Amino acid sequence: MGVPSPGVQFVLRMTLKREQVEFSQLLHAVERHGGDVIALDLVRSEEDTTVRDLTITLPQADEMGHLELELRSLPGVEVEYVSDRTFLMHLGGKIAVEPRVQVKNREDLSHVYTPGVAKIVQAIADDPSKAFQLTAKRNMVAIVTDGTAILGLGHLGPLAAIPVMEGKAVLFKSLAGVDAFPICLDTTDVDEIVETVVRIAPMFGGINLEDISAPRCFEVEQRLMERLDIPVFHDDQHGTAAVILAALINAARVVGKELQGLRVVVSGVGAAGTATTELLLGAGITDIVGCDKEGAIPHGQVYPDRPSWTRYARMTNPANRVGSLKDVLVGADVFIGLSTGHVLEPEDLKIMNRDPIVFAMANPVPEVDPDGAHAYARVVATGRSDYPNQVNNVLIFPGLFRGVLDTRARSVTTGMKLAAARALAQVVEADELAFDYIIPSVFNRRVVDAVASAVARAADAEGVARRVPARL
Amino acid sequence: MGVPSPGVQFVLRMTLKREQVEFSQLLHAVERHGGDVIALDLVRSEEDTTVRDLTITLPQADEMGHLELELRSLPGVEVEYVSDRTFLMHLGGKIAVEPRVQVKNREDLSHVYTPGVAKIVQAIADDPSKAFQLTAKRNMVAIVTDGTAILGLGHLGPLAAIPVMEGKAVLFKSLAGVDAFPICLDTTDVDEIVETVVRIAPMFGGINLEDISAPRCFEVEQRLMERLDIPVFHDDQHGTAAVILAALINAARVVGKELQGLRVVVSGVGAAGTATTELLLGAGITDIVGCDKEGAIPHGQVYPDRPSWTRYARMTNPANRVGSLKDVLVGADVFIGLSTGHVLEPEDLKIMNRDPIVFAMANPVPEVDPDGAHAYARVVATGRSDYPNQVNNVLIFPGLFRGVLDTRARSVTTGMKLAAARALAQVVEADELAFDYIIPSVFNRRVVDAVASAVARAADAEGVARRVPARL
Repeated sequence: MGVPSPGVQFVLRMTLKREQVEFSQLLHAVERHGGDVIALDLVRSEEDTTVRDLTITLPQADEMGHLELELRSLPGVEVEYVSDRTFLMHLGGKIAVEPRVQVKNREDLSHVYTPGVAKIVQAIADDPSKAFQLTAKRNMVAIVTDGTAILGLGHLGPLAAIPVMEGKAVLFKSLAGVDAFPICLDTTDVDEIVETVVRIAPMFGGINLEDISAPRCFEVEQRLMERLDIPVFHDDQHGTAAVILAALINAARVVGKELQGLRVVVSGVGAAGTATTELLLGAGITDIVGCDKEGAIPHGQVYPDRPSWTRYARMTNPANRVGSLKDVLVGADVFIGLSTGHVLEPEDLKIMNRDPIVFAMANPVPEVDPDGAHAYARVVATGRSDYPNQVNNVLIFPGLFRGVLDTRARSVTTGMKLAAARALAQVVEADELAFDYIIPSVFNRRVVDAVASAVARAADAEGVARRVPARL
Repeated sequence: MGVPSPGVQFVLRMTLKREQVEFSQLLHAVERHGGDVIALDLVRSEEDTTVRDLTITLPQADEMGHLELELRSLPGVEVEYVSDRTFLMHLGGKIAVEPRVQVKNREDLSHVYTPGVAKIVQAIADDPSKAFQLTAKRNMVAIVTDGTAILGLGHLGPLAAIPVMEGKAVLFKSLAGVDAFPICLDTTDVDEIVETVVRIAPMFGGINLEDISAPRCFEVEQRLMERLDIPVFHDDQHGTAAVILAALINAARVVGKELQGLRVVVSGVGAAGTATTELLLGAGITDIVGCDKEGAIPHGQVYPDRPSWTRYARMTNPANRVGSLKDVLVGADVFIGLSTGHVLEPEDLKIMNRDPIVFAMANPVPEVDPDGAHAYARVVATGRSDYPNQVNNVLIFPGLFRGVLDTRARSVTTGMKLAAARALAQVVEADELAFDYIIPSVFNRRVVDAVASAVARAADAEGVARRVPARL
C-alpha cells in the first residue's frame, strides 16, 4: 500500500576508517546493485574512524544481502547494522512521557512534588471533579487492546500490539493534541478485560478500545459503558462506521439520490459491519441487508450462539430478502464490504440499481477489484491509500476524542457519532465533490477541528457534556 | 517546607478595561496589603480589554482575600481567578504523551502506522524480546498506586493520588530520562491489584509501586515479583531503605565506627521500617531492634494477625532486648525513626552510645526535634528539605530504574539495592564528608549516573540482566 515508492529504503550504520575509505567506493557499490544513495549522515566522529548512516534505496529488498556482503568486503568498512526506515522509526518506541513543567531547583520541586503537591491532592479528595482540571486526566485517553485482532493479522498478543497502539498514540497527539497511552492487556477474557479497564480508569478522560476481536468487543464495550463515567469508544466499530457514513452522505450527493432512501447491502457482520449498520439506521436509512458467508441475514432470525447476530437480524432487512450476497445485491444502491477480499467480480455489480455506490474496505485485497468496479459503479471507495476515496479511521478518532475531552463528556452517543460523520462529510465542499473525492485526506487540516466542534456541540445538546468550552 | 520564601506567591488572572485601569492602581493595592508585584504578563489583548496575569507575593496567605476584594472594587477590573503557583503548575496536569517520530505526510504515516507497522508487529510476534527494542516498553515504568497511603495524608483514593504520581513521572524523566506513567487503581483489594498489574504489564519495562499502605504492600509486591519478568520495586519500602543505608554508611564514617558493628534501633515497622531493616541486615549489620507503639519487637515473636511482623521478629533483635523504645535505645549507636512525629525528647538521646546517629524521618514533624537533637547526637538526618541531610527517595528511584531499564533486568535484587546505596554514599567525597553533609543533594548531577551504573553492574553480576549496555 502507500504511494508506490521507487524501491525499498534501507539505512546502514557503518564504522569507516578515515584513511582507508573513499565515499565514492560506497556510492559505486550501491549503484552496482541498482540502488541510489539518499544520504550519508555523520553519527559520530572518533579519532581515526567515523560512524555514518548510509540511507539508500534498492530496486528489490533482497538485493540488500548482496550489497551488504560487498560493503563488508571493503577494507576499513564495518557494517554495524542494516535496517529499513520502518524499523529505524520504531527503535526505542514511538512515544515518550514528557513533563509539562520544569524541575530545575528546590522551589520547582516543592510545587511539583512534595510538599506542595499535598494541597492539590487534598483539593481533588475534596472535589473529585477537580481531577479534570489539575491532572493529565483532562486530556488523556487509554488505547486498550488485548491483541486479538491486530490490523489484519489476527491474534498475536499484547506485546505485538504495542507498535500499533503507539502509532495510534502518535496520531492522537500529532493530529488532535490528545494524550493517549497504550494499555496492552495480557488477557483475552471479557470479564478480566472489563475489570482491568474499570480499575485503571481514574487516570483517563476516555477509553479507546482497539483491535479486540468480535463478538467479545461488543460485550466489552457495552459493559464498560455501563460501568464508567467517561466515554468508551471501540474505534474498529464506530470510527469505521462514522467514516463510512460520511462517505455515503457525499456519495449519495454525487449520484443525486436521497440518503435515507438508499437500499444498502453490507457484506460482513463483524465489529465494523454491525456498527456501520447501526449508524446508518441512526442516520435514517431503513433498508439494510447484512450478509455473512452463508448469505443474507433474514429479518428476525435468532442465532443462539451469536447474540450480536440475533440483534442484527432484529433491526435489519425489513423486506426480509433472502439468498446469497449476489441475490440480495439485485437492485441495491449501495454495497458496503467489511468482510474479506474478492467476494465479488466487477461484473457482479451489473445487477445493482443505476449509479451503484461500492465501498470495498477489506485490506489489503478489497471485496471487489476497485479498478474493475469503476466500469460498473459510479462511486468506489476502499480502505487503501493508493486509490481515491480512502475510508480511514484516522479521519474520525482524533477529532472525536478532542471533542469528547473538551466537553468532559460522559459517553459517546449516537448523536455525537452522527454529528462527527456529517461534519466530516461537509469538509468536502459542494464544488469539490466528485465521484473520486467524497472523503477528505487524512492530512486535510480542517478535518480534526470540524469533527471536534461537531462532537462537542452534540455532546452539549445530548446532555452528556460536563463542561462547555468557550469556543462553542 | 522548602527554602523559606519571603511570603506566599499568587497569580491573579484579570480582565482589565484599557481606558479605565491604571497599572499603578494595581501596584498600590498590592503594596497596601504588604505585598510585592513580581510580574504583570499579558495573556491576550482584545478590543477594549486586556487579560493579564498579575504575579505577586504577600506576607500571609490570608491577606489574599482582602486584596482580591479591593481589586474587584476597582472600576474596569474583573478578577477571573486567583491561584497560587502550585495550582498553576498543575493546571491541565504535569505530564504529556509525546510522539518520538513525526507524521507529516503519507509516507511517514505508512511507516509509523499502517501498513508499515505490520512488519514490526510480526517481528515482535516472532520474537517477543524485540518489544524491548521496537517499542516504548524499553524505557517505560508504571507508577502504580491504589491511593491508600498518599504522602502523609492517608487513604484518599486513586483520583487524588494522580498529582503525586504525575510528579513522580516528572522526576523520572527530568532526572533520569525514564518514561513513567501513572496507573492509579480504583481498587484496594490485593488480589485485584495484583491481577490488574499483571494484565497491564506488557507495555512496561518496570513497575514502581507507590503509596500502597502496609501490610498489603508486602503481599502485592511479593506476588507481583513472582508473576512478572520485569522488576517490581515498592519505592516507599526500598527507595527509603537504600537512601537510609547510604546515609548510614557515611554517618558511620563521620563518627569513625564500623558499619557492621552498629547497634541500631528502628522506630516503626511499617513498609519503610521493614525494608530498611532488611537492607541493613543485607549490608551486614546484625544488631537491629524494631519498635512499634508497644515497644521492642522481641526476637522470634509470632504475630498471628500480622505475618510481616512475625517475619520481622524472626530476623531481628538477636540479643532479644525488650521494653519500651527508650529502654532499647540505651547504648544504641543509631536511631532510625520511620514512624510518627515526636516520639522522643532530645534529652532521651543521652542514653545512647557515644556519638549517636539519629535519623528522624517522620514528616512534617520528625520523631525528635532536629534542632534539639544536635545537642546530643553527632549526626542528625531528617526527611525535610529545610534541615541538612535530607533523606529523600528522589536520590534513588530515578537512577535505580535507569540502571534496571538499561540492562532489561528481570528483577531488583538485594545486591542491586545495596549497590545503589553504596554508590549514592560515594557521591559524597571523603574530603566533603561531615556531620551535616552525609547525603548528596537531589540536584547533584552525579547522583543518577552513579546509582544507575552501580545498579546496572550489579544486575549483570547477579545474573538478572538481559542486556549489558556498552558503557559498563
